Formats: sequence, structure tokens, C-alpha cells
Amino acid sequence: MGIQKKTRKTLMVFAGRVNSELSHEVARILGTKPVPTQVFDFANGEIFVRYEESVRGCDAFVIQSHAAPINEAIMEQLIMVDALKRASAKRISVVLPFYGYARQDKKHRGREPISARLMADLFKTAGADRLMAVDLHTDQIQGFFDGPVDHLMALPTLCDYVGKKYGAQSLAVVSPDAGRIKVAEQWSRRLGNAPLAFIHKTRDITRPNESIANRVVGDVAGRLCILVDDMIDTAGTIVKAADALVGAGAAGVVIAATHAIFSDPAIERLTSSSVTEVIVTNTLPIAEDKYFEKLTVLSIGPLIAEAVRAVFEDGSVTSLFGGKA
Amino acid sequence: MGIQKKTRKTLMVFAGRVNSELSHEVARILGTKPVPTQVFDFANGEIFVRYEESVRGCDAFVIQSHAAPINEAIMEQLIMVDALKRASAKRISVVLPFYGYARQDKKHRGREPISARLMADLFKTAGADRLMAVDLHTDQIQGFFDGPVDHLMALPTLCDYVGKKYGAQSLAVVSPDAGRIKVAEQWSRRLGNAPLAFIHKTRDITRPNESIANRVVGDVAGRLCILVDDMIDTAGTIVKAADALVGAGAAGVVIAATHAIFSDPAIERLTSSSVTEVIVTNTLPIAEDKYFEKLTVLSIGPLIAEAVRAVFEDGSVTSLFGGKA
Amino acid sequence: MGIQKKTRKTLMVFAGRVNSELSHEVARILGTKPVPTQVFDFANGEIFVRYEESVRGCDAFVIQSHAAPINEAIMEQLIMVDALKRASAKRISVVLPFYGYARQDKKHRGREPISARLMADLFKTAGADRLMAVDLHTDQIQGFFDGPVDHLMALPTLCDYVGKKYGAQSLAVVSPDAGRIKVAEQWSRRLGNAPLAFIHKTRDITRPNESIANRVVGDVAGRLCILVDDMIDTAGTIVKAADALVGAGAAGVVIAATHAIFSDPAIERLTSSSVTEVIVTNTLPIAEDKYFEKLTVLSIGPLIAEAVRAVFEDGSVTSLFGGKA
Amino acid sequence: MGIQKKTRKTLMVFAGRVNSELSHEVARILGTKPVPTQVFDFANGEIFVRYEESVRGCDAFVIQSHAAPINEAIMEQLIMVDALKRASAKRISVVLPFYGYARQDKKHRGREPISARLMADLFKTAGADRLMAVDLHTDQIQGFFDGPVDHLMALPTLCDYVGKKYGAQSLAVVSPDAGRIKVAEQWSRRLGNAPLAFIHKTRDITRPNESIANRVVGDVAGRLCILVDDMIDTAGTIVKAADALVGAGAAGVVIAATHAIFSDPAIERLTSSSVTEVIVTNTLPIAEDKYFEKLTVLSIGPLIAEAVRAVFEDGSVTSLFGGKA
Amino acid sequence: MGIQKKTRKTLMVFAGRVNSELSHEVARILGTKPVPTQVFDFANGEIFVRYEESVRGCDAFVIQSHAAPINEAIMEQLIMVDALKRASAKRISVVLPFYGYARQDKKHRGREPISARLMADLFKTAGADRLMAVDLHTDQIQGFFDGPVDHLMALPTLCDYVGKKYGAQSLAVVSPDAGRIKVAEQWSRRLGNAPLAFIHKTRDITRPNESIANRVVGDVAGRLCILVDDMIDTAGTIVKAADALVGAGAAGVVIAATHAIFSDPAIERLTSSSVTEVIVTNTLPIAEDKYFEKLTVLSIGPLIAEAVRAVFEDGSVTSLFGGKA
Amino acid sequence: MGIQKKTRKTLMVFAGRVNSELSHEVARILGTKPVPTQVFDFANGEIFVRYEESVRGCDAFVIQSHAAPINEAIMEQLIMVDALKRASAKRISVVLPFYGYARQDKKHRGREPISARLMADLFKTAGADRLMAVDLHTDQIQGFFDGPVDHLMALPTLCDYVGKKYGAQSLAVVSPDAGRIKVAEQWSRRLGNAPLAFIHKTRDITRPNESIANRVVGDVAGRLCILVDDMIDTAGTIVKAADALVGAGAAGVVIAATHAIFSDPAIERLTSSSVTEVIVTNTLPIAEDKYFEKLTVLSIGPLIAEAVRAVFEDGSVTSLFGGKA
Repeated sequence: MGIQKKTRKTLMVFAGRVNSELSHEVARILGTKPVPTQVFDFANGEIFVRYEESVRGCDAFVIQSHAAPINEAIMEQLIMVDALKRASAKRISVVLPFYGYARQDKKHRGREPISARLMADLFKTAGADRLMAVDLHTDQIQGFFDGPVDHLMALPTLCDYVGKKYGAQSLAVVSPDAGRIKVAEQWSRRLGNAPLAFIHKTRDITRPNESIANRVVGDVAGRLCILVDDMIDTAGTIVKAADALVGAGAAGVVIAATHAIFSDPAIERLTSSSVTEVIVTNTLPIAEDKYFEKLTVLSIGPLIAEAVRAVFEDGSVTSLFGGKA
Repeated sequence: MGIQKKTRKTLMVFAGRVNSELSHEVARILGTKPVPTQVFDFANGEIFVRYEESVRGCDAFVIQSHAAPINEAIMEQLIMVDALKRASAKRISVVLPFYGYARQDKKHRGREPISARLMADLFKTAGADRLMAVDLHTDQIQGFFDGPVDHLMALPTLCDYVGKKYGAQSLAVVSPDAGRIKVAEQWSRRLGNAPLAFIHKTRDITRPNESIANRVVGDVAGRLCILVDDMIDTAGTIVKAADALVGAGAAGVVIAATHAIFSDPAIERLTSSSVTEVIVTNTLPIAEDKYFEKLTVLSIGPLIAEAVRAVFEDGSVTSLFGGKA
Repeated sequence: MGIQKKTRKTLMVFAGRVNSELSHEVARILGTKPVPTQVFDFANGEIFVRYEESVRGCDAFVIQSHAAPINEAIMEQLIMVDALKRASAKRISVVLPFYGYARQDKKHRGREPISARLMADLFKTAGADRLMAVDLHTDQIQGFFDGPVDHLMALPTLCDYVGKKYGAQSLAVVSPDAGRIKVAEQWSRRLGNAPLAFIHKTRDITRPNESIANRVVGDVAGRLCILVDDMIDTAGTIVKAADALVGAGAAGVVIAATHAIFSDPAIERLTSSSVTEVIVTNTLPIAEDKYFEKLTVLSIGPLIAEAVRAVFEDGSVTSLFGGKA
Repeated sequence: MGIQKKTRKTLMVFAGRVNSELSHEVARILGTKPVPTQVFDFANGEIFVRYEESVRGCDAFVIQSHAAPINEAIMEQLIMVDALKRASAKRISVVLPFYGYARQDKKHRGREPISARLMADLFKTAGADRLMAVDLHTDQIQGFFDGPVDHLMALPTLCDYVGKKYGAQSLAVVSPDAGRIKVAEQWSRRLGNAPLAFIHKTRDITRPNESIANRVVGDVAGRLCILVDDMIDTAGTIVKAADALVGAGAAGVVIAATHAIFSDPAIERLTSSSVTEVIVTNTLPIAEDKYFEKLTVLSIGPLIAEAVRAVFEDGSVTSLFGGKA
Repeated sequence: MGIQKKTRKTLMVFAGRVNSELSHEVARILGTKPVPTQVFDFANGEIFVRYEESVRGCDAFVIQSHAAPINEAIMEQLIMVDALKRASAKRISVVLPFYGYARQDKKHRGREPISARLMADLFKTAGADRLMAVDLHTDQIQGFFDGPVDHLMALPTLCDYVGKKYGAQSLAVVSPDAGRIKVAEQWSRRLGNAPLAFIHKTRDITRPNESIANRVVGDVAGRLCILVDDMIDTAGTIVKAADALVGAGAAGVVIAATHAIFSDPAIERLTSSSVTEVIVTNTLPIAEDKYFEKLTVLSIGPLIAEAVRAVFEDGSVTSLFGGKA
Repeated sequence: MGIQKKTRKTLMVFAGRVNSELSHEVARILGTKPVPTQVFDFANGEIFVRYEESVRGCDAFVIQSHAAPINEAIMEQLIMVDALKRASAKRISVVLPFYGYARQDKKHRGREPISARLMADLFKTAGADRLMAVDLHTDQIQGFFDGPVDHLMALPTLCDYVGKKYGAQSLAVVSPDAGRIKVAEQWSRRLGNAPLAFIHKTRDITRPNESIANRVVGDVAGRLCILVDDMIDTAGTIVKAADALVGAGAAGVVIAATHAIFSDPAIERLTSSSVTEVIVTNTLPIAEDKYFEKLTVLSIGPLIAEAVRAVFEDGSVTSLFGGKA
């Protein structure tokens, strides 16, 4: 009894309005286009979404980066997911080149929210089956979502660029604080065991109440320092770190970071700093007026496209991206 | 075995940044103040919330109107609810003088979201135990939340003001379209059976493709028309309705509506119209530059305060507000 | 590591005891038969269900119309869904030609249930993944179910029959009340812009306390009136509307409605009315003794079959049925 | 900050239409009345419920026995629970003197439902916080509900009546089948260690394919046999058991059972049997025409009232009713 | 729009450390191997699991028997399921040759847990989509899991062995207590209607307070008795039953049981008893030092393998194993 | 209508078998005793729990430390929670002096579980309303539980002891690795701004592939070093750190840590080290044979008792314990 049919599956890419360029790039690499979608704001700011072709049964990847205005970006993506759920998409993967509210991943004091967990729950409620994100602020955020999370690493993208351009010079990999030295170790390994250093923010360790100083731990004298971080927000910390490196005799400083939030006065600080190149990815869209001469933007598109294809084809993301997926 | 203790409960009011004035008014009527709360935006737009005193075990009422920028307003309230849940509030009631996305309460066509349901689910996920709202766009939205919903009516507030001011004149109650005539009937009853009329938007009923005309159904000649609606957005429809009433010989037109969204060019239209008074409530905050001479703003604060007290004391909201709670 | 296999899917139709004829028709159109099922009542009224062949991994469509005795109909369908869930059906779609309790879609006053939402939740709990329904009482009911809902429209079925039979005459499309005029507009458009009219139930608009009158709005004199509604229960309203049309000089009246509930004394009223034809669909089974000369019953079977096939094949239901699915 | 208030709680009893007499009795014993409730059926069988006074914050006990028409009884109770949830009852206890579908507590063969679990889930979904039931068909049903279940025993009620009336005679306690002998042991203990016997339904144990015989195991000659069971449906089994006892020389047979389903032809069989008294409780309503001379109906009302009070006052149900609550 | 792909599915077997031999056997019969998995205990007893190859999109079967140390066995399986969920397995079936805590399937007295339900909920929470188990202690446990349960029967495996070896002799099938006589009936039918008997544990039925005796009901004189049970824990009951059979003139006693828990002093008791053969399955691993001469262990592997294949291929388990799946 | 009653609440303490001494201490400080509870293991290791007095309506605190055998400890606590839920406890707080599996709080590589999240979900499923824990491995674990988490800090307990005993000497606070320096800062502040230092585990920062060395950062010469950590497992790291401090000229080394896991060979290492005192708390039970001369065990009981009382009385935990609750 019954009617039989061989099954096929269809990958579809959906692009929110933030960072739509990246979504188109991902789709192009995969050999398709984002599904035509009507999205606009009503007079009072409410967002309206409608897909212009059937999405029934598809394997949906909804790409939206959480950039300013960040709450609109998140709400728009939630509404996109709801529309997919109600239109019978088979599986909905939320792709977050930058995961909003990731820094609020714990209660620093009493009576605070844990907004990073709240976001995970909101996406689950809207209908998300899985998350894909690039360089989460802490690894524990994976545990906030009740389902699979693919955690992609921008490190190979950034590092290979650095390797090609600067590999012939005498390098040091520098972490801007003690907490992220493990990432610097991965850079070091990939750059042929370049020496490590880190900046020790200290209230001079023996005089805890005095003002903070940046002490360089490790030998950087005469070396080109690759200063690595996960994000650049106002750039205050990292520029001071660069200054400290120069003060410690570094031959030069190059910054490499995944997420370019670039809140004011980041551009000003970076432009006027001693840094010779700032390498970031396009996980967040970078407004035209934020481009400056030293800035290099690498695309995260190929990485996301590769991961999307692996998920669609049930391949291993881990093997591609270094074991964290 | 065990330790016994008589139980008490504590009502606490929490005010989001939108329409904080209304929240303070509600608290004042209840004889308290909103709980001191630290709320601010990070450079990239992420919202941070922290309550500055213990909320453990409290009966929390979180008041936020969903006004522009509406997505921030909603996200801020979700985060406030999350913080309350994690700080052990005993019961969390979300108070929505204006419920955002209420108009997206169904799929008008395929592949649309049902955002009004999504909002109900997001608040549930964040930790809301119950909702309180004023004049929902459709009554069915009550069914979108999985829990108690108190649906308050601004009608008595608006209607009693009209009765006192204009009751001595010869009145007609007018609905701006055929769909809301039931509300007009309630006005009529409360105004001593004032005659009813409504505006019939028609493509001239016998020539469906021609342009829309506004036909007055009911006798309004020589009467002061009370034109009633749930919200005023750009005011296009309601101003045309007022014109039609004047054209039909009305002695004057007064508009009464609950939610003053006042998107552009509402103020311009209302100012230059033949309407003599525009009566609204403060369910949405009204910017100073949106006030104009004919505008009267009645406070919804006493109604909300009364309902909050009834909920806290397990009294009947229905008996107070006419049967819909 | 592992064993690979190409996947197939199997559509299976399951027929509740109410309206089993319709289910068989749907299955026949699809080229199959309902899965043989043992269903009976125990002495105390408890319902027992067992499927007589394997349903493991199937794409199940469980068809049951909610007709009297309506609570048995619903409970039987819930039990059928439970049995499918426990027998490993892959996806379970509940097909509701008539959705019971749809009219209780809000609290009219305090302390009422919202039974239409309750039904959606009960089906979800039993194991339903999606709903399919014909002409829901209000569109908002789609938002009551947490998942995809396909909302089918009987309008093309009814309208095309009318067009073929009466298209040569001078027609008017009439809504029996002001609230449903949007549907009448769709009829009008599909019938080549036939003029619209509606019945205005009024307590004479200027004397609200007097008895209700039915006033015809729009010009119907000399025209054959197509009176359209979503359901006919006791037929009181619609027969009075027909009388009003005749009183207003209509050349004749034909009724077209989707759901034929036909509670007493519907048949008597319709038989003795001035209506010349009553056109309904078989979303509800019509007992033999309820057939009368003027009655025409169109089958909804082809519409449901087409939608089931589209869902099974991940096709677009929207494109078939006019944008609401 | 905030407003303080001592808390009180209010017990309210709600009566479904089945067995409303029992609900009134329970309420009367507790010193109250069922909350006035409007309940009726629409023409097409849909049930409507509305409470006529405020139930906000109450500790609600919704009493409904699942008697024929059993599906209406269940649906009515589900709708009553939904209305309570939406009207802000604080805690909702569903009281089931007879739990419908309790016999479908497992899959006897493949592709069957487990309706007893489904019922538990439906009540949870509607909003029930806890269940109270009398003499469940199997104890495992307690595990079907995700929350507290109070399992009351009618045994003391029935047994004490028997003890008073027949205690002076020479008794035997008899189980009608091997599966329920543990209950008979409890009877025996409570009746001063009266001897036990049971009926062994056998296909003559050495000839498995032959017709079933009822063999009495245990010595009943010259004794008044108390034949105990959980329910009497069509009474076929139990009357045969009585006959077997008489055949084995019993001085007389008295039947004691909790649930009097009394499906046809139970009354006929019991009337014409050799049994001298049939003792049941009113967990199910017994129609007037089902009363017969030998029938004694004991009220379960005091037991339920006592349990309701214990739950309301956080007392121990266990100590009252023998350890199973 | 989109990228299409034919779908395949991949069956993968995962083996917990308890009874890993059985898991390997099941995999071997299916033509594969368990997925290489790193599992070890940290110094403080915490279990660590990691799969050594991609499991994305697979149809996973996680086999673990709940043997001592039983809580580790369960926790290990829960963690294995969690790892699969987070690594994007498509469907996760938990295979339980022996379901731990199955005997705690109800509250025997107040304030007890229902641990068998708790276990079902824990597996659901960890991510299990379905359960497969062999010979559950009571059938109702199927209703504890919210999803499909395949209930396999070891009876054919055990019974066919007995039939081949002893079929030529004059047999009787004996249940060790009155509660399990239905299973004995199935044995009887499969053994060509061998006569039934059971052991009646009695406090001498007419003297309830005296010590328990084992009375044989049914004629076993001169017959080889097949004593059947679901599990052997300390073997006290079953060895006494065997003694009673010998006392009643049995020609010999053979024990057949599914689950060999073999807690002390089971081996001693069985070894020194009058039983001539003890036939069990390997649903639980049997330590080498628990083997004794009379013991026969039949593998349950083929049954589980067959069921796994049927589930993977959406075939009927019912038809294979006698109607309970 | 209804019966009114003032409400009281009752705090009850429940003690698992691990660390029962601590539970008794907590209860004693609160002025009560743990509820008498029957807990034992069946022959096959299954745990049985039953409370010996009514717990209906109580505010339950279930204290169990997750010590070896850790999986039994967790399972026992889950079963205790289940029994409370089914016995109608009003609120269930799970108190975890040591939270098992806290270190598996993220996927270090692909296809690993996130067991710390799984534990949070298992407790939620069993029925826990809130968690209370001491010194979680990472703060993010608070976000794994969907509800309130009280995160207590042992720091004041440990630090005040050190201050009293060693405050007159010249101190340094030392973190055993760079990742925990923030906690050391809190110590420093509380000890009157004692200078900070930390141990830098390095592969000699300029030669990444060589073996790890421990470099002391900060000036410790001539100072008594307080080496602080969250837990001591095998004590390898911390003893090497102590050696490095001595090598760097420390006047002496004292270790202070919250959780004394003390897996082998911790005791041996600590005993033979240069450390003069090892200060821990009793969050984990310490077997008698693990006591050694230098060991000081401070009780965490007063802290937990104070927090339990604050939760029961809706007081602020934050104000008591420094802002993290």
C-alpha cells in the first residue's frame, strides 16, 4: 500500500540584509544564488519577510551576520527562520559569521542575563535545527544550543595569507593577552614554529592598585610580530599592545583578527598606530568609509561555503577545519 | 522535619527604556518605583541589563512598549526577562502597552512568517509566565501565547473622556472601515446609544477595478462624529474618512484611537485635516516634536496599574475592564 | 564504516471513520488506497485503532473531518496519530477538511478556553508534524500550530462550477455580512469582475436598540446573486440574506459555501427558501437524508489529493491554490 | 523596592457534566460548591465552557469521570483545563474517578496506540499540573504522567462495608483471575486474614486448545465468597466466576468492584446470577435504569474529598490511603 | 534555485564498553564494524567519549547493555548519545539488550521514584529518537518513552533451541509464578501445545500468615519441565520452583530465561540445584567465572541485527518477531 | 466560592549518600535534619530511594557531591529528584558542592559530547527547578541550565583562614597558570593587595617544541607564596608549580584549593613536596586514608547553609557571597 518515490534533497541559501554580499559569495561558490526574498521594514520598524519561490523540503542555510544595528539583524534572522519553518523547510541551519551577544556568556555579577544562551534558545524556538558559527568568543557557547553546532576557524585563512606574505621574514606570534595564548600556539605551529610572545596586561604585578602596563613576555626584538586576536572592537587594547611590541624592539607589527567590529575610534587608532598591516575577514560587513590603507580584508566565504557543502553532503567538517567542528 | 515560614509575595515593576515614563507612572500609582536597573548599549549595539537590587522570589511586571526602534525594544525586554529568570523571580509578567508585530498574525500569502506568534514564543522561551497587552490587533493573538493573557481595553478611558467633553452634543460613532464596526457598537452603547455609522471603502461596489472611494454608511448629517480606531500609523485612511464625514454633512469630526504610532506624515496630515481633536493614549511614547495643538493624550497608566494590582492580588481583571481579560 | 543505502519515501493515506468516503477518493486520485485499519469502539465508547500493515518510515496523511459526533472524530484522529508515531512513521500530516472548534479562536469574555489553539496543541502532542486544512474560520488559526500548515481554498472549486453554469447571466457576488467581503472580492475577480454586494445586518444603524434588519448594500436588482460563505450551520443567517436579496429585486439567489454542517433546521430552511441552488463541498459528510433537490455537492477530494501530492513531492502548494498555503 | 503582601491560597472545585453529582458531593464535604460554570454543546457537538466567577490564582480541582460518551467527557475536561490555564489558575489538578483508556496501556501487537499514555500527555498539554485517580487499571499508568499522581484506593471503602455487614460469617476472598491476586491479599489482611481463593481461567491446563474452564483454586466450600475486581464492564467474566464458586460449594457470593461500567448486558447477567449482592462505588455515574435490587453503591466522595484536602494543605495522602499516593 | 542531490543513508553501529562483544557480533552480522570510538574514565570516574570518524547524517544504533556497574553503563550511553546529537547524526536509536531500572516501573508506596520512566526521559533528553529493547519487565514501559519503541522477544530464540534438543520428550512448560503465565502460554503454543503448569507461591492459601510454600498447579509428573522466566537475578525463586517441580514428580527441570543477571549467590544455587540445564541469552555479559557446566548461552545478536536492519530499511519488525514491535 | 487558607512554606534538606556528612552539617546549621530516606543498591547496582515522611509542598534542597563513584552519585541524585517531583515537592533545588563533568564544557575536537551541558539537562528533565554549585570550572556552565543557578564562591572561606594564619607574613598570591589569574587577583585584593605572581607553563616560549618548563612571573623571592587553584586532581601541576616557586626563592609555599579530588598519586606528591600546608574544603568527601599531616580541610557547610537559607527566604545570595550568584 502506498506510493513510492526516490528522495532528493535541495540545498538553498537565504541571505539576510546584513552582509548580503558575503551570502551571495557563499552561494556563488556553491554554484547557486540566494533564494529571492522580499524583505523590508514597515514605517514603525517591523520587518517583513517573504520568499519568492517554494522552499518546501529544502535544506536551508540562513546566513546573517550580527552587525549593527545588531538587534534588527538578529530579529530579521529569527523571522526568516520562522517563515522557513512554516513553509516546510526540511532542515534549517542558521549561519552566523559573527554570533551576537557572544561576550555575555556568563553572569559577571548577580542579576545579569546570559544573553549568549538566550540567543541560542531564541533561534531554537524560531525553528533552527543547527548552528554554524565562525570563531565563537568562548568555546562553551557551543553548549548553549541544544543541537549540532559547527564551529569554524578563520585561523587557516588568516594564517596562510600571513605565511605567504611574511613567511620569509623572522616572525613572532603574539597574543594580546594571557587568556588567548592557545590560539597563538596554533598560529605558531602553522607558521613553522614561529616563536611565541604575549602581552601581559599588568597593574604591575607587585603593585596591584596602580595603573595598567603592557609588558611583553617573550623575545620579540628584531622580529616582525603577528599580533592575533578574535575581534577588533574599539582597537584600544590591540593598539597599545602594538606599541608595547615596538617598545620591546619589534621589527614591525601586523595585526590579524577574525571579526572587524570597528566601533569608533577603531579606524583612527589603527590608522595612526605603528602597525603596518591589519588583516581581518569579512565575517562582519565593513562600511566603505571604514577602509584604510593598511587594511586587508580576506573573505571567509570559501570557508563557509565549504562547511555548508560538507553539512549538506554529510561530510566531515572536522577534517576540513582542524578538529573543532 | 524541616523549617517552616509564612509566605509573602512582593510585586516589582521593571521598566524598559522605551516609554519609561509610562512605567514610572504605573509604579507610582501602585505606590512603588521601578527597580533600579542598569541598561546600556555596547559600542556594537548589544544591550546590557543588570538589576541593582535583589529580585529573588518577586512577582515581576516588565513594562516595555514596542516602539521604534522596535527590534531593540523587543530584544531589550527579552533580555530583561532572561535576567529575571536567572535571578529567581517567582513569576514574570510581560506588559506590552503595544504588542509589536501584531499585524503579522497570519500568512497573507505563502512563505511568510507569522511574526505575532513568533513574538509570543520568544517571550515564553525567555521566561515569561504571562502576558498583559492593551488592544491587540486581533483577539486571536491571545491564543498565540501558551499561558494566561490579560487583554486590556482602552475604550472606557477614551470613551469616558469623550462622553464628558462632548456628551451634550448630538453625536455619531463612526468606524473607519467595515471590519471594526463591533468596537464602534461598544462605543455607541457606552455613549447612550449614539447612532452608528461607518466608512465603506469601495472600489465603487459595482465597478471593482476603479479607484477606491469612501462612502459614509449611516446618517451623520449635523452630528459630531467620533471616529474610532485601534491605531493611527500614517493617518492616511483616517483622515480620508474624516473628509468623507465632512462631505456627508457632519457637524465636526473627533478622532479617538488607542495606539499613536504616528509614522510620517501622520502629524502633517492630522494637523491640516478638518478634524477638531485627536484623542490617543500613551501606550506608545510620543516624541515632543509630534505633539500638535489638536492632540489630546490620555494616560493608559491607571488602567495598567489597576490590572497589575488585580493580577498580583489574584483579583478579577474581567470585572474591571469589561469581560475580555 | 557503516552500511549505505539509497533512500526512498512512501506516501500512505490513513482514513478515520468520519468521511471515510472522501479519504478513499483522495487515495484513489493519488493512485493508492487507505492503509487497511482496524478501528472500533469498546462497549464503554473507548476507540481502538490498529494498522494492518507496516507503516515504518512512511510519509503519513491522516484524513478525518471533524463532524458530529465531533469529539469522537477528534479523539479517533489523535489516537491514529499516536499509533503512527509509535510505529515509526517518518512524518505525520493531519488532514482536516473541517477543523473542529475553529470558531473558538479567542476569548470572547473572560474565563473561556481558546479551544482552536488547544486542538492544535493536542495534535502536536500526539505526534503531528504538520496540518492541512480547508477554509479555516480565521486565518490566524494557522499561527496556533507550531509547524507548517497548508491552508487550502475551496474557492476555485466552487467558483469555477458557478462560472460554467451561470457565467452567461448577469451576476452579483454577495457576502452575507460585512466581515467576509474580502472573500467576495476574490469571487468577483474570478468571475470577471462581477459586481459586489453585501448584506448589512443592522439594528437600523441609527437606532441601535431595535431589532436587526438585513439591508442590501450594492446594486443587485435584476441580477442573479451568488451568496458566498465559509459554512452553513443552521442556515438562519444565510436564508434571511437570500430573502433580503429577493426583496431588493434580485433575479435569483444561489448559495455557495465550503462547509455543510447542516444542523437542524438547516435543510428545512433551505428547502423552503427562495434560493434556487445550494452549492457546497464534501469537507463534511452529508447524510443521505440531508440531500434535497436544490443541493449540489462538489468534491473537495481533487484539491486535497493535489495538495497531498505536492507536500509529498516537496512541490509548491501555493502556486496551485492561490497563495495561502 | 516593591509592594509586599501575605499570600493565601484558595481551593476551588470544578465539575464536568459527567458525574456532576459526585463533584457536588466532594465539594459539599469540603465545605464549598463547584464553581458556577456555563457548559453546553453547540449544534455540531462542539463543547463550550465558561466559568462564571474569577478563578485567578486558585488551586483548581477539575473532577470528571470518563463515562460514556467517554470522548466527550475527556474533551470537556481538557477544555475546562485550558480555560483554567488561560484564566490564571495557579495549580490545576485533574481528578479522574475513572481514567479513560486505562486498559490501552501497552501495545498488545504492533502498530497500536498506547492511548493511556496519550491521555496523560493530552492533559499535560492542556495545562494539568497533577493527576488524581482512583484504582488505575495498572500501577504503571502513574509513570505515564510527567508530574505527581495521587493514586487513591477504593479498597478500604468497599472492604469496611463488607466487614461490617458480613464480618460475622465465614468468609473467603476470591480473585476472578490469577493476575489480581495481590489485591485479594490486601482484602484478606483487612478482613482478619480471611482465606484466599482465585478463579483459574484455564484451557484445561493440560489441553491448551480446548475451551476455557473456570477452576476454583483454594477452599471455598461453605464460605461466603467476596469476589473482588477493579471494574465490571459486561460482567461476563465475573458472573462465570460466581457460578464456579457456587459449583465449588460456596455458601454464597458477593461481588465488590470499584468501577461500575455496566455495559450491556451487565445488568441482565448480574440480576439473573447467583450473586446475592453487588457492591460498587460511584466513580462512574450509574443511570437510574441500571439500578437493580442486589446493587449497593458506596460513595467514593469522602475519599476524594479527603485527598483533595490533603493535597491543598500539603498533607500526606499516603498515610490516609495506604501507601500508594 | 538551489543545488540538488540524491540522498543516501548510512547505518552505523556504536558499541558501549559493557557487552562490547555482543555489539561487535551485531555489527558483524550486519556486515560492518562498530565505529572506532575512544572511551575511557578520568581519574575521578568521569567518562570521556569521542568517535574517531565522521558520523554526520548517519542512522546511529548505540548498543549498550545495562549491566553492573549499571550506573556507569547508563551514563556512558547517555554521553554517547549526546556526542552523536552534537555531531549531527540523523537518527539515534538506543539499543538496550537489558533495560536498567525496568523493575522500578511504578510507585510501590508513596514517595518513591519511577526510575524506569526517568531512564526513558533521560535518553530522550540526551537525544535518542527511538528505543529498541529485549524482553522488557512489563510491556507498559514502552509507554514511558515518547517515541517509537521496538520490543524484541527472545522467546523464539530460546524456544527453538529447547524444541530441537528436547522436543522428542514429554514436556511441560512451567511459569515460576502466576503473573507470567501468558508468556508460558506462548511457549506452549510454539512447542506444539505442551501442557502448562505454574508455581503458586502461597502462604498456604487458607492460612495467609504462614510461611510461603510453592505449590505446583498443573500436572507435571513424569514430564521434563521447561521453567521459563524473563530474568535470573539471585536465582532464589527459580531454584525453589525447580525443587517444587521435582517434588511433584517431574522427570527433570530445564530453566530458560532471557536476562542472566546472575547476582550472588545465583551460580552456587543453580550449580547445586536439581536443574539439568540453564539456558540464557547474552543480553547481559556473563563473566568467565560465572560459567558453569549446565549453562547454555544463546546469542541474542542475530535477533538484534535483524531488527536493526529492519529499522534501517523501514521494514516490519512485527512480522519478524511475533507482533510486539 | 472556594476555601481559603494562609500559605506557609517548609524547607527540607535531602542528603545523597556521597558526602552525607556535609549534608548533615548544612541541615544542622539551618536547624533541622535531612529527611529520613531509605537508599540502597539492588544486587545488580540499581539504586532505590524512598523518603520516609511526607514531602508534599516542600521547598527541597537535594545535596550530593559528585565524587567517585561519580556516575552512581549523579544517578542517585537524579532518582532523588524524580521521587521528589512525583511526591509533589513544590520546588526542587539541586545542590552540587562539586559539579561532575564540569571540565567537559566544550568540544575540544569534533564528535565529542558536551557532558557538562548534558548534566544540566538531565537534572532539568528529572525535575530540578534550580541549581546551586560551588566554584564551577568555568562560569559559562551557569548558562547550561535553563533556570536560576546560584554560584557560590569558596574564596572568602579559604582566604580568611589564610589571612588569619599568615597575614602577618610577607605574602604573594600565585596562580598555577595564566588562565586563572583573575581569581588570584580577588585573593590579592582580599589579602590587602598582596603582590601577584603566576606560573607560566612554557615550551620555552621561543622554542615551542621543547619540553614544558615552569617559569615564575612576578617577584616571589623571600615571600610566603599562596598558590591558589579550583581543584586538585592528581596534584602534578600544582606540585611542579610549588617547586618552581621554591626555585625562585619563595620563603615557603601554601596551597589553597576548593575541590579536593585527590586522585592517585595526589597524596604522595603533596606529602613529599616542599609545600608546608594544603588547604582545601570538604566539597568532596575526603577518605580517612587520604588525610596527611599538612592537610587542612575547611568546611563549606556554613556557606551552603547560608545560601540555602537565602534562597528559601528570597534573600540576596549575591550580597552574601560577592556578586556572582
